[in-house]
Amino acid sequence: MSDQNPIFIPGPTNIPEAIRRACDIPTLDHRSTLFRDIFFPVLENIKRVLKTETGEAVIFPASGTGGWEAAICNTLSPGDVVLTSDFGMFSRKWIDMCLRHGLEVRRADANWGQGLPVEAFADVLRADHAHEIKAVLATHNETATGVRSDIASLRAALNEAKHPALLLVDGVSSIASMDFRMDEWGVDVAVTGSQKGFMLPAGLAIVGVSQKAIAAMEHARLPRFFFDFRDMLTMNPSAGYPYTPAVGLLNGLKASSEMLLSEGLEQVFARHKRLAEGVRRAVQSWELPIFAADPALYSDTVTAIALPQGIDGNALVAHADESYGVSFGAGLGEVAGRVFRIGHLGKLTEVQALAGIATAEMALADFDVPIVPGAGVAAAQSYFRKSKGA
Amino acid sequence: MSDQNPIFIPGPTNIPEAIRRACDIPTLDHRSTLFRDIFFPVLENIKRVLKTETGEAVIFPASGTGGWEAAICNTLSPGDVVLTSDFGMFSRKWIDMCLRHGLEVRRADANWGQGLPVEAFADVLRADHAHEIKAVLATHNETATGVRSDIASLRAALNEAKHPALLLVDGVSSIASMDFRMDEWGVDVAVTGSQKGFMLPAGLAIVGVSQKAIAAMEHARLPRFFFDFRDMLTMNPSAGYPYTPAVGLLNGLKASSEMLLSEGLEQVFARHKRLAEGVRRAVQSWELPIFAADPALYSDTVTAIALPQGIDGNALVAHADESYGVSFGAGLGEVAGRVFRIGHLGKLTEVQALAGIATAEMALADFDVPIVPGAGVAAAQSYFRKSKGA
Amino acid sequence: MSDQNPIFIPGPTNIPEAIRRACDIPTLDHRSTLFRDIFFPVLENIKRVLKTETGEAVIFPASGTGGWEAAICNTLSPGDVVLTSDFGMFSRKWIDMCLRHGLEVRRADANWGQGLPVEAFADVLRADHAHEIKAVLATHNETATGVRSDIASLRAALNEAKHPALLLVDGVSSIASMDFRMDEWGVDVAVTGSQKGFMLPAGLAIVGVSQKAIAAMEHARLPRFFFDFRDMLTMNPSAGYPYTPAVGLLNGLKASSEMLLSEGLEQVFARHKRLAEGVRRAVQSWELPIFAADPALYSDTVTAIALPQGIDGNALVAHADESYGVSFGAGLGEVAGRVFRIGHLGKLTEVQALAGIATAEMALADFDVPIVPGAGVAAAQSYFRKSKGA
Amino acid sequence: MSDQNPIFIPGPTNIPEAIRRACDIPTLDHRSTLFRDIFFPVLENIKRVLKTETGEAVIFPASGTGGWEAAICNTLSPGDVVLTSDFGMFSRKWIDMCLRHGLEVRRADANWGQGLPVEAFADVLRADHAHEIKAVLATHNETATGVRSDIASLRAALNEAKHPALLLVDGVSSIASMDFRMDEWGVDVAVTGSQKGFMLPAGLAIVGVSQKAIAAMEHARLPRFFFDFRDMLTMNPSAGYPYTPAVGLLNGLKASSEMLLSEGLEQVFARHKRLAEGVRRAVQSWELPIFAADPALYSDTVTAIALPQGIDGNALVAHADESYGVSFGAGLGEVAGRVFRIGHLGKLTEVQALAGIATAEMALADFDVPIVPGAGVAAAQSYFRKSKGA
Repeated sequence: MSDQNPIFIPGPTNIPEAIRRACDIPTLDHRSTLFRDIFFPVLENIKRVLKTETGEAVIFPASGTGGWEAAICNTLSPGDVVLTSDFGMFSRKWIDMCLRHGLEVRRADANWGQGLPVEAFADVLRADHAHEIKAVLATHNETATGVRSDIASLRAALNEAKHPALLLVDGVSSIASMDFRMDEWGVDVAVTGSQKGFMLPAGLAIVGVSQKAIAAMEHARLPRFFFDFRDMLTMNPSAGYPYTPAVGLLNGLKASSEMLLSEGLEQVFARHKRLAEGVRRAVQSWELPIFAADPALYSDTVTAIALPQGIDGNALVAHADESYGVSFGAGLGEVAGRVFRIGHLGKLTEVQALAGIATAEMALADFDVPIVPGAGVAAAQSYFRKSKGA
Repeated sequence: MSDQNPIFIPGPTNIPEAIRRACDIPTLDHRSTLFRDIFFPVLENIKRVLKTETGEAVIFPASGTGGWEAAICNTLSPGDVVLTSDFGMFSRKWIDMCLRHGLEVRRADANWGQGLPVEAFADVLRADHAHEIKAVLATHNETATGVRSDIASLRAALNEAKHPALLLVDGVSSIASMDFRMDEWGVDVAVTGSQKGFMLPAGLAIVGVSQKAIAAMEHARLPRFFFDFRDMLTMNPSAGYPYTPAVGLLNGLKASSEMLLSEGLEQVFARHKRLAEGVRRAVQSWELPIFAADPALYSDTVTAIALPQGIDGNALVAHADESYGVSFGAGLGEVAGRVFRIGHLGKLTEVQALAGIATAEMALADFDVPIVPGAGVAAAQSYFRKSKGA
Repeated sequence: MSDQNPIFIPGPTNIPEAIRRACDIPTLDHRSTLFRDIFFPVLENIKRVLKTETGEAVIFPASGTGGWEAAICNTLSPGDVVLTSDFGMFSRKWIDMCLRHGLEVRRADANWGQGLPVEAFADVLRADHAHEIKAVLATHNETATGVRSDIASLRAALNEAKHPALLLVDGVSSIASMDFRMDEWGVDVAVTGSQKGFMLPAGLAIVGVSQKAIAAMEHARLPRFFFDFRDMLTMNPSAGYPYTPAVGLLNGLKASSEMLLSEGLEQVFARHKRLAEGVRRAVQSWELPIFAADPALYSDTVTAIALPQGIDGNALVAHADESYGVSFGAGLGEVAGRVFRIGHLGKLTEVQALAGIATAEMALADFDVPIVPGAGVAAAQSYFRKSKGA
Repeated sequence: MSDQNPIFIPGPTNIPEAIRRACDIPTLDHRSTLFRDIFFPVLENIKRVLKTETGEAVIFPASGTGGWEAAICNTLSPGDVVLTSDFGMFSRKWIDMCLRHGLEVRRADANWGQGLPVEAFADVLRADHAHEIKAVLATHNETATGVRSDIASLRAALNEAKHPALLLVDGVSSIASMDFRMDEWGVDVAVTGSQKGFMLPAGLAIVGVSQKAIAAMEHARLPRFFFDFRDMLTMNPSAGYPYTPAVGLLNGLKASSEMLLSEGLEQVFARHKRLAEGVRRAVQSWELPIFAADPALYSDTVTAIALPQGIDGNALVAHADESYGVSFGAGLGEVAGRVFRIGHLGKLTEVQALAGIATAEMALADFDVPIVPGAGVAAAQSYFRKSKGA
């Protein structure tokens, strides 16, 4: 890859200049008053991005995976039952984490390419009269398959079943890029990382916590220290931190959250949708299948593209990197080799998207995939031109 | 504080220009071959800094506290007995972590200002014929009190007792600044963070793991996922990572470890000792007690200074920050308000040290502490001049 | 424009990350020994880039225009006769400079879009038996029209006429991007600026000076101080400078010259030619005329494209900037409004070139220029794919 | 020198973090509308810093020396008479420039260490009934000797003599650090550079031009092009530039001028005076003579210190650099070897000043200059403490 070209992995994203600058600061004493001028606005901004007024924001120097661990450790006890689904690489990994923590996992899986099976979840929840299920775990956007699930419907299913389970949502590749409504959807723990919609380097797990989760925290017996919400919620109000915070990244998060809120969240979502649609038009012009099973499932942050039989997606991605200096996402897990992915999240321009499409075309043509080079670019150009300012 | 002045908290340190540059890079695909060119040298360099040839290096996107958690979760099981000591704020916090993880903690405490009580540990170990103690936890350098403990003697005590317990060492504020010999001292897990001797921003937990710890890992039943050595040790050899790595910090760690090894570890330690001695001479000229109980305990990374009755150390530190734009370390825990600390680790120059001493003098004089302003500077100048190039 | 997109003005170019880093350094004492470690390699590298072994390099904190002024002031006296040509905006400006300095200008003009009329020059030189002409001024690459002239033939004409005039060459937009042979072509003063082939911000005039020019310098009576070669040539050998040098830019120039020489000059020229050819294929697919009158004249650093009657090039360029965040070059002087220009110099990737082509297509289509969007991209893709690694 | 230590040459200064950031921007099209958003505020801010409401600001990509050349070339004709004085290295160099430009120089010199001899100038002006003198050249602050001259009195002398000569002032090391009143003092051309009070890297000549100078410009016959005010004054109002501007430095100048005006010019001057006084107190405690002949002449941006017989100032400065990593100014011209200079301009903190004083003490002691190490620090500490917030 070349640092002159945009990057099309579904996170980390291209980092806007202003955010790089905000991250790269001289050492600042995190016990001085300067830190609170960074930290307090960050906490407020994160809540606004999560669309929660009643919840709290907690930020760990970790990755999104650390956020998952915080979500379960702070709310559950060994042997607790969770309901979840394997429908992509990241939902599968969260299951593995639950198992390693001694939770009992009930699954309602779906084929990869499908979203979280809300109906199946609803059936299980309705049948769980004893309320054995303590938490429902949902991956909002499966980064591996480019599939967005319907969290609002999942909340409706919980409500309809009058089920008290906590709702823990992996919003790593959706939050700050696609609509996410923590309060309205009744999300109890919302998890994301710095390197996705917030456009920062990796290094922060950003977590929203509902009052219900805070109440659950008091009785949760999974061991925790580094990821303990309690220390954070006790110390943060006085700008304290249980260990050395990643001040530079937090300053970057201040900049990026201000950038998002200043643009307006709905505008940010619309921008992502428009860029994604341009990419999808290109893919359609190539007559290659989008891996997500249905347009309603299309993710606005990443598009997974199914490759013809005999084309090795990993080799294709490596080739684009080596020959054209552009990184795309390879297939992961069950779809390794069968798909490649174009990430289109963060602060991407139409021109950058066109560069990615043009590169994908060259790589596909080099692999004798029967596409018409330029056709995808033309389809996206046409869409970008007519949707300009719309 | 002012970013024009050096910082004298005992970490994060002043970040050398070259390291800031190395951290601040455009987004790089961590699945591309470029990543291995960063990551492999880092792993090798870390082992050299830890002085281990048989152990492995593991790096988490976390803080030193996360390294502590990795140390215990990967080697111990619920209910396991550990032997440790409360002799400062950070040793105390590690005990708290053990308790929250359901370990049984046996303690041989010492007064703050003293080092880890090796003799008392030896007695306990000798008496533990049943080898109930699974791990000994030791804080090499107590950042809160400026005290360095004797890990070599602790190893001797373990050997003398023929005790098979693991030796887990917190080297957060010693490693890469003061001599640390993982293999020679038989350290099983060595923990540090990026923001101390490695001169980086906070954000990485850097851990050395012995083969004995790796063997223990197979049977350890404390739950873990984010901090699981197994995923790291499986994936790292192919430059894989179980989640998104903090690439910028790793690139910075490549630069800082190269800087350290290129200077020479013994030279780095001598440099720290010389700077520390200059600060201590200044403190002695003020006729204020160094908090560490004995010169043999003096830390070369931080000096805690006892204040006269009636002087509030927290207010003093706040005053130096507000009036002169310089951050020192306040007292923590039991010594909050009673000491202030001058950090002198990382890439500090004599001139920066003199600036810190001069500032401390102004702040002390402003608080009517009976010192002669300039005297500490003169003492340090004299020492720096005559030890130049020695 | 958006700083996320590449820039296609014919200088300043997109600045590679490593060069930005090299320019952005803390204040360094230009009288300390550190400066010579920057400055001496720069002078040597510049001579290698200029392909001179006998000449000297001189660097002013100025722009390429300052280099023009240095060229004439240091070699000529009031009333001296110079031979030159108006065949583009920059050659025209140099004439204006000569007039303002009281030189007598003889001209052999050419239509814009043509190169320097070597045959006409040869005629004038042959007829100048009295050797009244003291200097011949030639613009190697006319940035305004995308035309490269033939300096080797001009030298041949001088030789054939046995004419002793100095040969002063404006290589601002050619040097370090297209082949330039100071010694072989007998160039007496070669001028460029930092913001073109050297990929730096504007701020340095970089000048090569032959021994013949140095001899002329002793008798030249045009007043000069800031641009005086004498002070430079006297002081530079001991790393002295007649005033404060632009140390950051010089450090950047060290990095960029090392980058160029490490890649290999012929490889750099081939890379520029290949990128330029990709752009030209795109223009040809649009069926728009390249403004340069003949393929032999095509510049490898900038392509000027003639627009159909009724299309305002300035408006087109402004539209691409405002609607798509991409800067192209507008027409200048006689061709203002009639052409637009795509700069393709410096460290541009194929992918960046495709992004520029795709953007130009959208802008042209928005202005109802009858092109087929995507066609230019396809033409360039095809060329880039088949010329890959060739 | 070490980039970890502050620098004490009298320019370039230590660059504040925010200014470094502002200078280091991606390539920005100087013909796009973004440029005017940088450039117009800069021009307005410069006029405010110069305290002119009727004059114009002109900025060249050059150094302060270029500003001198602009001052004379744009206002004078060959053979014109100028009145000036050699009383330091920089006033001497400006005389050399005038001579190289064919001006007739009348001099009223003063001993180095003295200021511009206003009385002698008054005498000459009064005697010049024919008004042969076309311009008076004055160096406001002699950087070589640490002497500030009295421009207000010089204006009074011109007025008293009813002399129409232009007043051209070198304010390179005074403007933006010490009071400068272009309109009130009737300065016709005021010259500075970016690397002094504006705290930027070298690379800009910043010039204020009165209406009287603009009128003179129409008749001035010294040749000029690069430094021609006419092109600037014609093109700047539409954000045009006669050649490629140094956009990054201009963006930095926007930041630094905003910083200065936001702090308040009088506060900036008072800050410089206070820092300078701290340094002077230290020098006095060493019982070494300040080179400026009289306290009224003391510069607030640089202090030149006379050394005892037998002490080589150049060696002293080299020693401080090599042994302690700190750069001071060496003596220049007539006082080479006899003085060393401490620059204290720009955004210096008291703590940085103390670091410089402490270093100077070590170097002086190493050279067996009979000072009491620590005494200068103590004197400055005492002054800084009692003048805090005053």
